[in-house]
Order: sequence, then structure tokens, then C-alpha cells
Amino acid sequence: MRVRRAPRGDAKQMANAIRALAMDAVQKAKSGHPGAPMGMAEMAVALWDRHLRHNPADPHWPDRDRFVLSNGHASMLMYALLHLTGYDLPLDELKRFRQLHSRTAGHPEVGVTPGVETTTGPLGQGLANAVGLALAEKLMADEFNRPGHTVVDHRTYVFLGDGCLMEGISHEACSLAGALGLGKLVALYDDNGISIDGKVTPWFADDTPARFRAYGWEVIGAIDGQDAESVDAALTAARSDASKPTLIVCRTAIGAGSPNRAGSAKAHGEPLGDEEIRLTREAIGWPHAPFEIPADIRAAWDAREHGAVAEADWQARFALYEAAHPQLAAEFRRRVAGRLPEDFRETAFRLLSQSAQSDAAVATRKASQIALATLGPALPELLGGSADLTGSVLTDFPDCGAVRKGQPGGRHINYGVREFAMAAIMNGIALHGGQLPYAGTFLAFADYSRNAVRMAALMKLRVIHIFTHDSIGLGEDGPTHQPVEHAFSLRAIPGLDVWRPCDQAETTAAWIVALQNADRPSAMLLSRQALPACRRTPEQVVDIARGGYVLSEAPVLDGTAAQPADGRPASVVTPDVILIATGSEVKLALEAQALLAQRGIAARVVSMPSTSVFDRQPADWRRAVLPAGVPKVAVEAGITLGWWKYVGSDGAVVGLDRFGDSAPAEALFAEFGITGPAVADVATALVREGAGA
Amino acid sequence: MRVRRAPRGDAKQMANAIRALAMDAVQKAKSGHPGAPMGMAEMAVALWDRHLRHNPADPHWPDRDRFVLSNGHASMLMYALLHLTGYDLPLDELKRFRQLHSRTAGHPEVGVTPGVETTTGPLGQGLANAVGLALAEKLMADEFNRPGHTVVDHRTYVFLGDGCLMEGISHEACSLAGALGLGKLVALYDDNGISIDGKVTPWFADDTPARFRAYGWEVIGAIDGQDAESVDAALTAARSDASKPTLIVCRTAIGAGSPNRAGSAKAHGEPLGDEEIRLTREAIGWPHAPFEIPADIRAAWDAREHGAVAEADWQARFALYEAAHPQLAAEFRRRVAGRLPEDFRETAFRLLSQSAQSDAAVATRKASQIALATLGPALPELLGGSADLTGSVLTDFPDCGAVRKGQPGGRHINYGVREFAMAAIMNGIALHGGQLPYAGTFLAFADYSRNAVRMAALMKLRVIHIFTHDSIGLGEDGPTHQPVEHAFSLRAIPGLDVWRPCDQAETTAAWIVALQNADRPSAMLLSRQALPACRRTPEQVVDIARGGYVLSEAPVLDGTAAQPADGRPASVVTPDVILIATGSEVKLALEAQALLAQRGIAARVVSMPSTSVFDRQPADWRRAVLPAGVPKVAVEAGITLGWWKYVGSDGAVVGLDRFGDSAPAEALFAEFGITGPAVADVATALVREGAGA
Repeated sequence: MRVRRAPRGDAKQMANAIRALAMDAVQKAKSGHPGAPMGMAEMAVALWDRHLRHNPADPHWPDRDRFVLSNGHASMLMYALLHLTGYDLPLDELKRFRQLHSRTAGHPEVGVTPGVETTTGPLGQGLANAVGLALAEKLMADEFNRPGHTVVDHRTYVFLGDGCLMEGISHEACSLAGALGLGKLVALYDDNGISIDGKVTPWFADDTPARFRAYGWEVIGAIDGQDAESVDAALTAARSDASKPTLIVCRTAIGAGSPNRAGSAKAHGEPLGDEEIRLTREAIGWPHAPFEIPADIRAAWDAREHGAVAEADWQARFALYEAAHPQLAAEFRRRVAGRLPEDFRETAFRLLSQSAQSDAAVATRKASQIALATLGPALPELLGGSADLTGSVLTDFPDCGAVRKGQPGGRHINYGVREFAMAAIMNGIALHGGQLPYAGTFLAFADYSRNAVRMAALMKLRVIHIFTHDSIGLGEDGPTHQPVEHAFSLRAIPGLDVWRPCDQAETTAAWIVALQNADRPSAMLLSRQALPACRRTPEQVVDIARGGYVLSEAPVLDGTAAQPADGRPASVVTPDVILIATGSEVKLALEAQALLAQRGIAARVVSMPSTSVFDRQPADWRRAVLPAGVPKVAVEAGITLGWWKYVGSDGAVVGLDRFGDSAPAEALFAEFGITGPAVADVATALVREGAGA
Repeated sequence: MRVRRAPRGDAKQMANAIRALAMDAVQKAKSGHPGAPMGMAEMAVALWDRHLRHNPADPHWPDRDRFVLSNGHASMLMYALLHLTGYDLPLDELKRFRQLHSRTAGHPEVGVTPGVETTTGPLGQGLANAVGLALAEKLMADEFNRPGHTVVDHRTYVFLGDGCLMEGISHEACSLAGALGLGKLVALYDDNGISIDGKVTPWFADDTPARFRAYGWEVIGAIDGQDAESVDAALTAARSDASKPTLIVCRTAIGAGSPNRAGSAKAHGEPLGDEEIRLTREAIGWPHAPFEIPADIRAAWDAREHGAVAEADWQARFALYEAAHPQLAAEFRRRVAGRLPEDFRETAFRLLSQSAQSDAAVATRKASQIALATLGPALPELLGGSADLTGSVLTDFPDCGAVRKGQPGGRHINYGVREFAMAAIMNGIALHGGQLPYAGTFLAFADYSRNAVRMAALMKLRVIHIFTHDSIGLGEDGPTHQPVEHAFSLRAIPGLDVWRPCDQAETTAAWIVALQNADRPSAMLLSRQALPACRRTPEQVVDIARGGYVLSEAPVLDGTAAQPADGRPASVVTPDVILIATGSEVKLALEAQALLAQRGIAARVVSMPSTSVFDRQPADWRRAVLPAGVPKVAVEAGITLGWWKYVGSDGAVVGLDRFGDSAPAEALFAEFGITGPAVADVATALVREGAGA
């Protein structure tokens, strides 16, 4: 099944079918990008008709080739291909391009359109996703193939444009792909020399082939990208060297076929207009009505039969594999389905219990590594890594092994100092299936990877970001390295769970919840500095998973400040004030609680390791933890902006609405007034104000 | 003054002075990075003693060479050099390395330490800053030099390491520097083959010289970076080709001099320890006590005299220039001082008045361009650009001209699809002085540039980011392009003013305030879609600059709902509810106000174009605009998280706590319930709830 397929139709007309659908759909939508699909039409014919191994009837077949459209604005190319080759994407959907609830969104979206492997549009990231897909394939092949049984053996193809190549992430991802020798990755560069501002040479004059050779890639071309035979030959040649990824430089004209717009920036991002479409139809010899595809062209494009044959062949081979290696086959099925191991709940329960019993003061980054020492062996899908900070972010675990060029396996990736590519590659790994990626850097540098973290949330991918050195608590490295706004700026991303645990038990619980959430990414904000262990009842240990819970109930004081609530056990009192804290500030809240008790003020301490998880709890839970009418003080060594949601306008927030400074951690907490006594003073003022009002 | 200076001391011992200071200061601080300063010590000798044109007594001399330490963790190299050459950085400060309020922060910080040109630490950005510095020099030279009068002629030198080169921003910045032919930029690559995770080859195997040649750079080396003579010769050679930037590849050993740690990752980020320091002293022949520098070495390093001579020479030449071109010289002084033109207030007033009179519905991105048509000619320091979206973000103005290789001048930079480098280059331009950079991209891609936006805030730089397509209002491009969390994630950055104006008048006012704020960056969030003009009194026009103000007072209703306040004019009523809105949602608030009036509810509409500017107003102002005790509803087509600060826990927020969708804008606002009637309904419920309670 690895060989090239014979062409089954007239390449030019097959390409014109794409051109026509692209310009017609964009025109109907009055919005979109016709130029790139028209320019890349023959590239698509060569790849999709002659090389790509896929089955339109089963977009999730594990051993399909992966195709990524990194220049995602060319979405109509993707939709035309999916429609023409026989995916469940009827013509009506193409007619509803870019309309509400259609399956043909402005940019391709995974989960919305069958056959779309990743959501693209933010330039450069599709290319990095493709590196992740190719890396996942390599690691899955290493792990599951056996002599005589090759069940993982597919390629990753990516189309990309000038924009992708200008973006820095292309450097990060392609440099790493070269260093890792991802030989089954084939990138086709739509070298049309035009970007939105015009002819690119004044601002983009790279010798791109030389650049990619410098990364250790095989480079083919420039070839004529509008000649399907040339692209076909290049795709065949791309297979010759399995040790290097390949870049095929395809010279094209943007908007090819359009007599007046081809080769100009004007073809990029707006409809051609009825008259130019008419002229284009004439010029390319496509007399058919809008959205009409002649039967012979339709037949030539139809990939259902050879797709079915290809998958059937694989299924037959997988059956033999299953017979020879039943346990391995079962594990393969589990992994590809994204199911955690049967015994995971048991593992998790045991680990959490152990963690809860620990009374050691540890940095939560270390607590994470302690959890990984159990989780790593228990979950073979866990695939770690760091952006050149392994010894600081503590993402490795015993015997994880490093992923290396020319060596099989390894479960920890040295991503290098490449935060953005790391996050986008993790997205590709998660999209591939079979692996569960996590990786770490400093929280301040979450900024570098931010849009890929967002994309994970948009795509609902289970990836886990370890962001350590999570506050001014990192100390001397100073304000460039001290996150102050990062916790809330990550919490702002819809669909991302942010955890900021306060000790070993919360860190372990966060890991467990993150692993169990199959459809969302998580970010763990972990301390550099050691944090004391909190005491919890078994019920409280379970409650951590709710994101916010009463860690220490307001004490019953013999003064008048705290009143046992009617009919409730004596230990349940209505607190005078509630202190909400996360991470390293939980200990300050506990310290303040003790100080307040001395002042006759009964304070409840709520630990809120994850605001988004807390927000998803039933209203009863939220009200019980944070009852209305009780003054509230939040404390977090970061910006105060988001805490008003929880403390209300009559509450208070102890935080840091400025950048940090370079000094030992304790000096900084004191300097900025983020201390137990300061919290106690703020709470006291709040309670007395309320009493006075 | 352009020629190389003669060496004045023993290069090895001069380098060892740096080594000793670096290892001693790190040891005393018990924190820091000794390895890189020790490895780069001879590079520093060659550059600082023999080539760098600077005057320790006047760190702000406009025509000084610029030096950037892009691998900012090597800060002790910088501090050692500044101390030894004679800047106002006494030895005591070196002894207080990384301590609270010292001038020797963990990473070099501009404004904290004299002679530090930019704050570095986040890898790769210093290199991009250097590109900005070099570009600013070129443009200032184009603009101000005259035949026989060369008053701008300096070089930009940057030290960088493997980490900088792995980061994607290095690709973006260096590719652009090549395309623009910035021949006075010289980068010295500390090629030590080690990063934090160890020997880099498994994850960083680039042929870096080939990569940089592909960018159009001159590449020298690899040379022996620990031989000052070789580096000296390379620096001389770097001057031979003025049309290309130069990369000098300097092979070094990290921690050079340390018998047991040189060449190992262990040398990177922790003190060597007393014993290893002792052994290093022995090995390098440095018998002196910690922080002790022998007089001869000190004399050899002292750059005060030749610095004074160099500046005096320039001052003399500037005096001749001033005599020949008095107006130009005055303009040069104004520009370098960062003062706006004398007539700016008048220009601004006139422009604002015109804007306030406009009743045209325009997109605020267009409103920004309309303002630029006046501001561009009025402020010759304005230097625009876009990340390949000029026709969309509308950052150009008539006759601005493009910045091009080999051509003088131009006031608009096609940065290419390089958002992160764009922002970091803007920082470099602002740091250089003489230019006032602004540039645009889509708001969703502010993520790509985020850390450089943060760095502008940390450095208190006047740069202006134009972020257009600021909500789901961009329509069909879909969720990848629709910012929902971005307004608040930018508002989260301390020291950054975020503006989201609602019409031409607010857009103009935002521009004016941003230009007047010399010590902070601003971000303008602008709509793709047209927005109606609001009516304002002259007082209200002035009030825009307060960030939040009453745009439309609650109407006096004849029902019982609205009560004229005691003793105040009849037009001043206590509103039943306050609607707070920004940008495109202000019109929805006004629509809701009208609907509410029909229901007998008197609503005040507060326009809040900038929350941070509003927060800085006196408490009286804030209380007058948002009085306590009145229910409040905020409306913004984005996440609700940050609005609770303004509406309180008994208020309401109409927003979007999820990603958007691909569809025409109106369909999306309707789908997500962000409409005038929806706001009116929420406000009604709030008022009735309150009345019922």
C-alpha cells in the first residue's frame, strides 16, 4: 500500500474542480480566501489522488496518513478535497461555507468537519502540529510494531505558505524535526511569493531551501507546483531518505486560473467577483455551473473504494498482529481510543492517599515529579518533555528515557528552548492519538506558547502544561521571570483548566483530574519554593477535585465573634470572614486564620486550586464554600483583577498589581505585603468595616 | 573614531577579571549564572575594550554604540563590564547582586542599571530588540545626516546564546534584518554547545552559519571565542560589508576557567561553590580576593577617558551640524528627548474636535487610520508597520513610504508575518530613541507577541499596538481569529493601557493619550465592523481621556422608576441601573437604554474604553461614574471574568465565556445573546430582583 497510486483522471480538470468550488463557495459566502486553494490545486491532486492513504468512510482509521493544511485560510481546498474524495461533507455544506453551524467554517476545525486533522488558521502552528503528528507516529511505531507486523506506518503531509515560514514557530518546529530525523514528515511549500502586503521579497528574502537544509531536512525543488506530475514525482522522491523530513518547494501562482488576479495579493482574501469568476471559468475551461462537478471528474476524485481497500488491508494485517500479540493489540486499541488503563482509578486512589498522608514540605514542582514517578509507569501513554528546563520543571521520571534521533522509544522529549513549538507539537501528538503529552517550562514563558495553549482548548485536547516558578516566589531571577498576570491570563482561556495547588495532595489531585478530563487541556502552575503540607480529612482530599473547598473551617471561638449556626454541629460555624487562597499563598491564609482567631475573628480558609473547576460545580457546592453575606478576602501573589468575581465588591484582594523584583523570595513577599499578618490585617479591617456599617 | 582601538591590557587577565567578578557575585548571592559570563569573557574584552564606542559618564549619549546581552542570564558579564569600564555602578552594587533594590538585578534591566540598553532574560527578545535598535539607527541616519555632517552613525552589537537561536523569534527578527540589510548590526554567538538540558546536539543540530547565510547575513567563523585577538579581528572584518548584518560564531566553553565545570550544563545556573572557585582562581592565575581587581587591570578596563574623547568629538561635530542645520538639530534634540512637538496639544485638540463632530459610522480600525492621516504628518517620529496585514489593520497613512533595503527613509515597516519579532523590534526602536513605533496585527495574534508586549510594559516604553478585528464582530474567519479572552488578558499586564474605543472620537482620544504617555505602552483594540458615532458634549469629549465616563445619562422618566436627585438639576437623576460597555458593545448599551426607558427603567450608559486609565482616576471620579448601590451590568463581547470588579457580585455581565464561531457577525451576536434587547432583559431582571429583595 506504500506505492504511488496511478492517476485516475485528467489532473488539470481535477484541479479545476477545486478551483471552481473554491471561488464559487467564497463568492457565495461573500467572504473567504480563493487564492491559495486555486494556487495549490495541482499540489492537492498529486498528493490526494496519488499518494495520500486515507479512507473517507473512516476518518479515524488509526494508520491513515495525516494531512495538515497549515495555511488554514485555504480552507476551501480542504473542503473541496473532503467533499470530492467522498467524506461525509455534502455539497450543501460547501454552499453553506462560513455560515452559522455549517461544517465548513472559515478555517478548518477538527471535530467540526470529518477528515480535518487539526484546526489551523493561526499561521505556522499547523506545521508544528504536523511535527507532533509525525513524532507520535514514530513513537507509536517504535512501541507497537513487531517483526513481521507493521501496524503503525503512515506519513504526515503538510501544506504551508509563506506566512507559515515567516512565523518563528516554523523555525522552532522544523529545527526540532530535523534534529529528531522525522523522515515520514513531508512538507509542501506553496511558494507563490505573495503575502497580504504584496510581493514578499522586500520583507521575506530567505533562501528557504538553504534554511531547511541547515535544519537537516531533505529539500526538493523548487518545482512547478502547478504541474501535478512534478509534484507527484517529488512526493515519490520524498520517500527515498527515511532519516530526514522533506520540504518540497512548489512554485505556484496565487489565484492560478484567474486572468486578472492570479499572482497578486488581491487574490488572497476576498471573493473574485462574478465577472472575474466568469473569466476564470473561460480561462481554465470549466463551463460548469457553480457547485456543479461533472460525473467523470467526480469519479476520478472518488477515493472511497481505494480507501476501503487500504483500510481493509490494514485491518487484515492488524488481525494477524492481534493473533500473534493479543495483549499488545489490546493495548494499542486502548491507547488509540484514549481510554485510561482499567486500573487507573485504583492507581489514582492509592497515589492520592499516599500524597495526602505526606507531611513533607515540598515545592509543588517536586510534588508533580513525585506524582509522575507513579503515573509514568502506570500510564505508558504519558509522553513528557520540557523546553530545556528539565532539571527545573521536573518533568522527567525514573527510566523515562529520552526521545532521540535514530533510536527507538523514549518518553521524554528535550524540546529545546522552543516553548511555542513545544505546545503546538503537543497538540499534534494529542491529535494523533495513542500518546498523552505533557511538558514544562517556566510560567512566565507560557506567554511564548500562549496561542498553542489556546488552540488546545479550542480543539478540546488532553494536553497537560507544567508551568513552574509560578510567582515572585521564584526569587532572584527577577521580573522578567516572575509571572504576576499569568495565572489569570491563562484562566481567561475558555476550556482550559488552570490548577495552582498548594501542596503534594493538591498537586496529585490536579494531575488525576487533568488526566481524566479527556476533552480539555490543563495547566499546572507550580512553585519553585517548598510549601508545607496541609492536613485534610479523607473527605477534604476528595473535595480537592472540586476546584475549591473548605480547607480549614472557621474555628469556634469562645468570644462572641463566631456563632455556631442553628441546628448544625458545634464545629460548623458561620465564619466572620472567608480567606480564599491558591498555591503558595494557602499557607499565608492559614497563618492569617490563626492570627485572626487571636483577635476573636473566626476565619474560614478556602483553598481554590482551580477556579474553572470550581465554577463548574453545582451552585449548592459553590454557595456552601463561599456563602453570600460573609466578607471575603482572596490572596494570590499575582494580579487582583479576576478575584473580584469571588470576593464581591465589598471584599478585598491581597495581590500584586505590578511587576515583581529581583531579590530572595522572602524579601519579595515582605516587600509587597503578601504575608500572613498582612492578610490578617486586611481581613480584620474588612470585618470591622462591616460591623461598623 | 570608527577604527579599532589598541588593546590596553593583557586580554587574558582582563577576561579573568570578569570571570572572577561573575563567580564571586553569584557565589555571594547564592544564585545566578556564572557559566555564560565566564565563557564570553574574551568576547567581551574584544568588543568592549577595542570596538565599542561608548562613554561611561553619559550612558544616554545619542550616538553611542548599542550593546545588547540577549542571553540576559549572563547579567554578571554586563555588570562586570559596566563596573570595570567606569559606569556609575560601584563594587558595592556587584556585592549586592540579585538583592532587593540593588542595581544588579538577576537579569539586566533598563532604567535600573546605567548602561543597560534593554531588559533581557526572556530568550531571543534581546536579539530582536537589537534588530530594532539597528533599524532605528538606520532610519535616524537617513533622516538626520546631511552631506558632510554625519551625526548618526553607530553600531548595534548583541551577544546571544544557543537558547536565543532556538527561539522562533530569532528566525523572525534575523530574517527581517537580512531582508532589510541592516549592515551595522553585529551579533556575536556564544557557541558553547550547551544548554540547560545538556549538550545541545540531540535537540539543536542546526547548521547555524548556513541558516544565517540563508537570511542574507554575513557569517564569520566559527572562530575561537576565547581568543580575544580572533574576536577582535572578526569584529574588524564585520565592518567590511555594510549591506548585510553579521553573525560572528564564537566557539567557547561555558564556565571557561572552572576546572571541573567548564563545558558542562552544571556551570549554567548555580554558584560554582567555594572549593571550585578556589580551584578556578588557581587554574586561571587569579590570586586576588573576591571582588578585588588589581589596579593595572582596572586601569586597562577604564573606558572613561576614551569615552569622553569620543563623545566630545561627536559633540564638536554636532555643533557644526547645528550651525549648518539649526532646525534639523533642534528637531534631532527633540526627537531624541522623546518630547512631542510644541504644537502637539493644538494638533490633538483640533483633531479631537473634528473627530467628535463626525457622525459617520466607521470601523474603529478605520477611525484609527483617519487619526493617523493627521498624526502621521504632525509627528515625524511616528514609525508604523504591520505584520503583513496593512490593508486590514490600516496602519499606513498617505505618503508614509515603506522602509526598504538600500533605500533611505520610509515610515511604515512591512514586518512580515512575524508578530513576536514585530513587537520586540518596536521595543528596540523605542529604546533607541528618536522614533515612536506603532504597528498592527489582529487581536487574536496578540498572543504571538504577548511577551514582548509585556516587556514593553516592564520597560515602560512608549509603543503603540494596533490590534484590530477585536471580537466575534470579525465574523466568518471563525474562532481561531476571534479574540474572546484577549481584551482581559492584555488588561492583565501591569503598566499597559488597553483601549477599546467605540467610535471615531474615542479612537482619536485613545491615540492622543497613548502618544502623551511617554512611559507606558498602549494597545488599541479596534473593530473590523463599522460602529455608529455617539453624540457627546465638549465636556464628554474631554472625559474620554479618563478611561471611563458617563456617555449617556439616565433619562428622566415620568414614571416612578427614576428619581431626580435632591437638589441637583432635573437632568441629573439617580439611575436605576448602570450599563457599562466598551467598543462595539456601546451601541448595544445605548439600544438597551432606550428599551429600558420604555419599561420605565432609567439606565445610565458608561463608556469604559480603558479600564486601567479609569482605575487611575481619583476615587471621586470613579464613584461619580459608578456610584455604589446602583445595580450595574457590563457588556463586552468577550469573557466576563474581569468585569466583576466593576459591577460587583450583585451585578451582571453580558459576555462570552466560550470560543466564537464562524458566521457573519450579526448572526454571531444574535447566537450568543449579545444584543441590545438581551442587555435590556438582564438589566430589567437585575433591577426587579433588587426591587424585590
